[in-house]
Amino acid sequence: MERAEQGSPIEPDPYFGPPTDRGEATLPGRFVTIAELPELNVATGLVLQPLLGSGLMVSFARYEAGAEAPLHAHEEEQVFVVVDGEFDVTLDDETRRLRVGDAAVIPSWVPHRVTASDDGPATQIDVFCPPREGLLRLLEG
Amino acid sequence: MERAEQGSPIEPDPYFGPPTDRGEATLPGRFVTIAELPELNVATGLVLQPLLGSGLMVSFARYEAGAEAPLHAHEEEQVFVVVDGEFDVTLDDETRRLRVGDAAVIPSWVPHRVTASDDGPATQIDVFCPPREGLLRLLEG
Repeated sequence: MERAEQGSPIEPDPYFGPPTDRGEATLPGRFVTIAELPELNVATGLVLQPLLGSGLMVSFARYEAGAEAPLHAHEEEQVFVVVDGEFDVTLDDETRRLRVGDAAVIPSWVPHRVTASDDGPATQIDVFCPPREGLLRLLEG
Repeated sequence: MERAEQGSPIEPDPYFGPPTDRGEATLPGRFVTIAELPELNVATGLVLQPLLGSGLMVSFARYEAGAEAPLHAHEEEQVFVVVDGEFDVTLDDETRRLRVGDAAVIPSWVPHRVTASDDGPATQIDVFCPPREGLLRLLEG
């Protein structure tokens, strides 16, 4: 495998080439405007906008300055990506300050806590696979 | 279920409350610096940095102006989120200009194409569940 070097793409192209095992789509593609997604105010100063696929969920999270997602754990695997602002993120017993360019992988049942910096609002994206049951319940409620 | 209204959080808190069915973590949490992830130059002007979890993958994609992910399809479900710049995204037969605040859900085997605007570089995040096999092969190669 060739890694990215000197700006030259991998040749021959193994990534976008025609799949040998091509299947049939059963669901249509969907364009999404995030601002139009439902808003769930799950804690003081913390609003989530979950986008639900079939086997995964992407949740767009806006925190006011200092807002907190308290220590919790869940079965669904999660990836946390900072989009704007700064967060103190605790995974197990370790806390780090995360900024744009930082992310965290949160495996099943790993306890985690997130606090937005006091300096201002902050936004992040959570990915859950499978979709987080607690959010599905709120969306259906 | 209460939706977000007048800034008041949902009470009692059904989202961060202690799970009744609590499990045991078998993998540690991981803090990730995106700049340190491997870089895959999968097409001219298009570099991917995949972050691999257990059942999901988040791929950070940087496009130079006008760079293209040609029409392709794959079994893995995908969510596409714009982080910076503008893209023309084709799903099936429909093409739309996507900007920050826009996303797309790409179910299994839906043909899609992505072209970054000619106006400048653009970045987006792809989520795959399960991890996209074509990217796993490149990471292992």
